[in-house]
Amino acid sequence: MTVAAAVAAVRAEMTDVLVELVRTPSVTGEEAAAQRLVEQVLDGLDLTVDSWCPQRADLEQHASFSDDELPLGERPVVVGRWVVGEGPSTILNGHIDVVPVGELHRWPHDPWAGAIEHGVLWGRGACDMKGGLVAGITAVAALQRAGLRPTGDVLVQSVIGEETGGAGTLATLLRGHAADAAVVLEPTRLAICPVGAGAASFRLHVSGRAAHGAMRLEGASAIDAYVVLHEALHRLEHERRATFTHPAFDAGALVAPISVGRLTAGDWPSTVPERLVAEGRHGVLPGESLDEARQALEAAVAAVAAESGGEPVVEWFEGQFAPAATPVDHPFLARLAACHEQVTGARPAVHGVPYGSDLRFFTNDLGVPAVLYGPGDVAVAHTVDEHVVLDEVFRAAEVVANLLVGADLADA
Amino acid sequence: MTVAAAVAAVRAEMTDVLVELVRTPSVTGEEAAAQRLVEQVLDGLDLTVDSWCPQRADLEQHASFSDDELPLGERPVVVGRWVVGEGPSTILNGHIDVVPVGELHRWPHDPWAGAIEHGVLWGRGACDMKGGLVAGITAVAALQRAGLRPTGDVLVQSVIGEETGGAGTLATLLRGHAADAAVVLEPTRLAICPVGAGAASFRLHVSGRAAHGAMRLEGASAIDAYVVLHEALHRLEHERRATFTHPAFDAGALVAPISVGRLTAGDWPSTVPERLVAEGRHGVLPGESLDEARQALEAAVAAVAAESGGEPVVEWFEGQFAPAATPVDHPFLARLAACHEQVTGARPAVHGVPYGSDLRFFTNDLGVPAVLYGPGDVAVAHTVDEHVVLDEVFRAAEVVANLLVGADLADA
Repeated sequence: MTVAAAVAAVRAEMTDVLVELVRTPSVTGEEAAAQRLVEQVLDGLDLTVDSWCPQRADLEQHASFSDDELPLGERPVVVGRWVVGEGPSTILNGHIDVVPVGELHRWPHDPWAGAIEHGVLWGRGACDMKGGLVAGITAVAALQRAGLRPTGDVLVQSVIGEETGGAGTLATLLRGHAADAAVVLEPTRLAICPVGAGAASFRLHVSGRAAHGAMRLEGASAIDAYVVLHEALHRLEHERRATFTHPAFDAGALVAPISVGRLTAGDWPSTVPERLVAEGRHGVLPGESLDEARQALEAAVAAVAAESGGEPVVEWFEGQFAPAATPVDHPFLARLAACHEQVTGARPAVHGVPYGSDLRFFTNDLGVPAVLYGPGDVAVAHTVDEHVVLDEVFRAAEVVANLLVGADLADA
Repeated sequence: MTVAAAVAAVRAEMTDVLVELVRTPSVTGEEAAAQRLVEQVLDGLDLTVDSWCPQRADLEQHASFSDDELPLGERPVVVGRWVVGEGPSTILNGHIDVVPVGELHRWPHDPWAGAIEHGVLWGRGACDMKGGLVAGITAVAALQRAGLRPTGDVLVQSVIGEETGGAGTLATLLRGHAADAAVVLEPTRLAICPVGAGAASFRLHVSGRAAHGAMRLEGASAIDAYVVLHEALHRLEHERRATFTHPAFDAGALVAPISVGRLTAGDWPSTVPERLVAEGRHGVLPGESLDEARQALEAAVAAVAAESGGEPVVEWFEGQFAPAATPVDHPFLARLAACHEQVTGARPAVHGVPYGSDLRFFTNDLGVPAVLYGPGDVAVAHTVDEHVVLDEVFRAAEVVANLLVGADLADA
């Protein structure tokens, strides 16, 4: 039985698993029910399953821990190991947690129904990234169905807390789960993405002096001050963009956006506001350290503080994600590209991504080659239009299954 | 007994009343306890007291009703009438309600203790405007102590809800309380203020398109759009300021400030915000109608909407205060100025104010000459430094008492 035939043979069963996972809400912090389901599926594949609930005390000493202030506790991480023994081992990593759905009435499809229409599965988590996770599980199921043996151990990791900093993948490292390479099955539309920018969450505190709005000149508006700072952040982004070059990115691409996502100021329409807090994300360029990026933003704010007023103070909080990079000429990329071409008949796109992900734990902390590669389009992740094309899920599974058995090596 | 001697004779008793009023919190909506105290004091002066709780149904049909969405109900308005009969009658108007105290720890004095230090009374409401209200009551008490008779009926009005739109004073008009002139005892540092700008509260809704902050160019930030609108509002204010002239204001004074007091946008630091709401106050120039002022702001927003994006929508809500004006050459001002000079030895300052107050009900709705005139400095109103100098309270009382008996007329 070929890999392709085996994927086809398990497709119906694995589609059911994916639908059931989308129907099981798993917003970050509330992953337990979905993880129980994953554990059952991995048990059914005769993998050696390690399921445990990481504790804050275990994680918080690690330099890469990004404190999202969410409680840990009943939030299991699940790793299913196909024990093969000697030979190149591979991690297939997917996060089970999803972002909140926001305003339900804005969804064209019920985000938790798992509806399939014309080969497209709709819902929260469809592409980010239950689709990718199921592609990884399908690769294993297909190889077992075909009686094919991977080159080494395969670890299917279903992790928690990726959306707020990656507590789950960090926990797998601290638990001792390791391999020679990793595929993080994030939605890349089957592009190979060996480089990801980092991101640092910041909070900008701006002060003012209250006064009645009718006598606003007696006060000082924190909003007036912020407007100057907002434009300084835009200029900083522009300057960094203009000078950055990297082989994994098109010239002029916006690799490290600065985006303010949340703003609150004042508490009375007719009082000059004396407090403003802006929360945003600062992109960290590949090749740059978190500290370098943070210092650049702090310097840009300090440089206009005299003009803006408002005594701006920058605080760094929650997600602090270093960039991740596997060299674009690493042999692991060539292997994955060859498998992709075998399955699809075309060379894959290879490019970096501007967002942070668990990729960094594998490249930076475990120190192995790793890429993002998976079904679905990140452009609809976190939106009310989230969906994944099922053909793409199972194409990803077939590529990964070929990679696991070293189809490209046999071919060479 | 002279008026001055009579004021001195009742000063200790009236100081106690003022301290007790400051010690009785009366934040807008919760005026009942303080009003009971006022009613007792007016009863003790043998005034004919009318105390009633206005109902929304009575007020909301009136064109000058400004809906603050606060429930009415157990919020009595108190009017004490000294019935004299024929002759020029006078309203002495003060509001009992005060604004919230905000963060207690920022107060150098307990806002509800009524502490007196070196002749200065500290606390919420000290100048805005329990000090002025007690000045009016003292004028009546002093005349009674001296056995002097006013030129006509005197109405001491203690009203509710001034800080959020003036429900109390409007209720006195609808109840039929009227006189030939009115002194609103707001803190003017004993300046005569016959003109007040108006104010219209607005809410600016700005839209965006959500996207992950790492791919912000796929979205559109409501904050980016707002920054353009914020600057358009500043330009509008500047243009209106540059072209406005009025005999009650210095050339170039900022009579009708536009001030945004409250801003909320987005709900996640790393998501491009798709909603922003800004709340502020738009100044209405004396001589301008509310509608004219509102149209000017709407036009300024519309004029930059193509540049800003964000499909801005202006909503008008809560306080919609028309400007108020008594001509600066009205004989009533000359009378008050003469009394002021008799008591203080100096000509009073006469100028307009940039803020709205209950003055407009008397000038616009009752159609009588009216001014703001009272002890204390509006610059400390609504702040943690609110206070009033007791000497100024009783100087105001003496001036008003002289006005009530027509001391200036006798003098002429």
